Amino acid sequence: MKKALIIGGYGTIGSAVTEALKESYDVITAGRTQGDVHVDMNSIKSIKEMFETVGKVDAVIFTAGAAYFGPLEGMTPENNLISISGKLLGQVNTVLLGTEYVNDNGSFTLVTGIMMDDPIYQGASAAMANGGVRAFAKSAALELPRGIRINTVSPNVLEESWDNYQELFVGFNPVPVAKVANAFVKSVQGLQTGESYEVY
Amino acid sequence: MKKALIIGGYGTIGSAVTEALKESYDVITAGRTQGDVHVDMNSIKSIKEMFETVGKVDAVIFTAGAAYFGPLEGMTPENNLISISGKLLGQVNTVLLGTEYVNDNGSFTLVTGIMMDDPIYQGASAAMANGGVRAFAKSAALELPRGIRINTVSPNVLEESWDNYQELFVGFNPVPVAKVANAFVKSVQGLQTGESYEVY
Repeated sequence: MKKALIIGGYGTIGSAVTEALKESYDVITAGRTQGDVHVDMNSIKSIKEMFETVGKVDAVIFTAGAAYFGPLEGMTPENNLISISGKLLGQVNTVLLGTEYVNDNGSFTLVTGIMMDDPIYQGASAAMANGGVRAFAKSAALELPRGIRINTVSPNVLEESWDNYQELFVGFNPVPVAKVANAFVKSVQGLQTGESYEVY
Repeated sequence: MKKALIIGGYGTIGSAVTEALKESYDVITAGRTQGDVHVDMNSIKSIKEMFETVGKVDAVIFTAGAAYFGPLEGMTPENNLISISGKLLGQVNTVLLGTEYVNDNGSFTLVTGIMMDDPIYQGASAAMANGGVRAFAKSAALELPRGIRINTVSPNVLEESWDNYQELFVGFNPVPVAKVANAFVKSVQGLQTGESYEVY
């Protein structure tokens, strides 16, 4: 059976993606404190160790990444680094370091988020990370070897999380997590590469 | 007379923007080795010192930023930091640290580049930085105080640089630098905010 490594696999999206893929893939989950393998996405060493532990896989999937949320007025070069080293470089470095561990015709699926296109209060740092990840993936798709593909999924706010986030996402139309998970499935099992699947 | 601070003001674009603005603005140029003020965009301390030296301005304009170019295969977490600390954080940190030095109804204009939308070989790291800058600016526009605006300009490859870059930009239609400079003028002197002016 093919293998899928899901990083951040214990959140709302991660659980849904695991559920959607588990009939076709041997799913390995990775997370900071939970999962089959522990990984600190801020650490190049930890990312390398994750791949050494897991070995060859057919799909590497991110369903979450750390980002700073806060008013622009209180955003500093220092707290912005949470998004840089987490959601942005955590994902980019995983592609750079993990390509050799992905089987021929395998795939990377990274996660971004709607606030890069439809910005929200307190979201400038996360938007920055998301926009960087989307553009990186679109470009990296041209040069990945051995038929390896890369796409990004940009979720809207989820129906399942609406109670917690509705004040930040005023006027948004939340989407069901099943629809977001389907975009991940399309990225992993479809044929396209360099795409941004925007589930808005 | 109003004051405009142009960072990277000695390149092809920077010179054209200076020329286009100098009748309406007292233009101050900043650069690593050239210009009225010296600044290292990789250094928070240096950015702060630049603003302390220059004082209040009406427009802060980037026309260049350092990025890593090279094949994806040789792209590493380490060399990718050239784009992170240069073109991405150099610009983002200048907004975060410089807002207090911008007069009411002033503006920031940041620079991105076409390879985030129309990727080229060796351009994944630069595309990442560009995508991050565009999304940050779009979001930051919602929260900047005192009528301060922020836009980005994404230039295509220039006619004036075509001899040097045509092998990387095969099939592209280069644009004259005067057209790119006009997008900067629109950002500085117009009324829109949160825009990405794509001069393709």
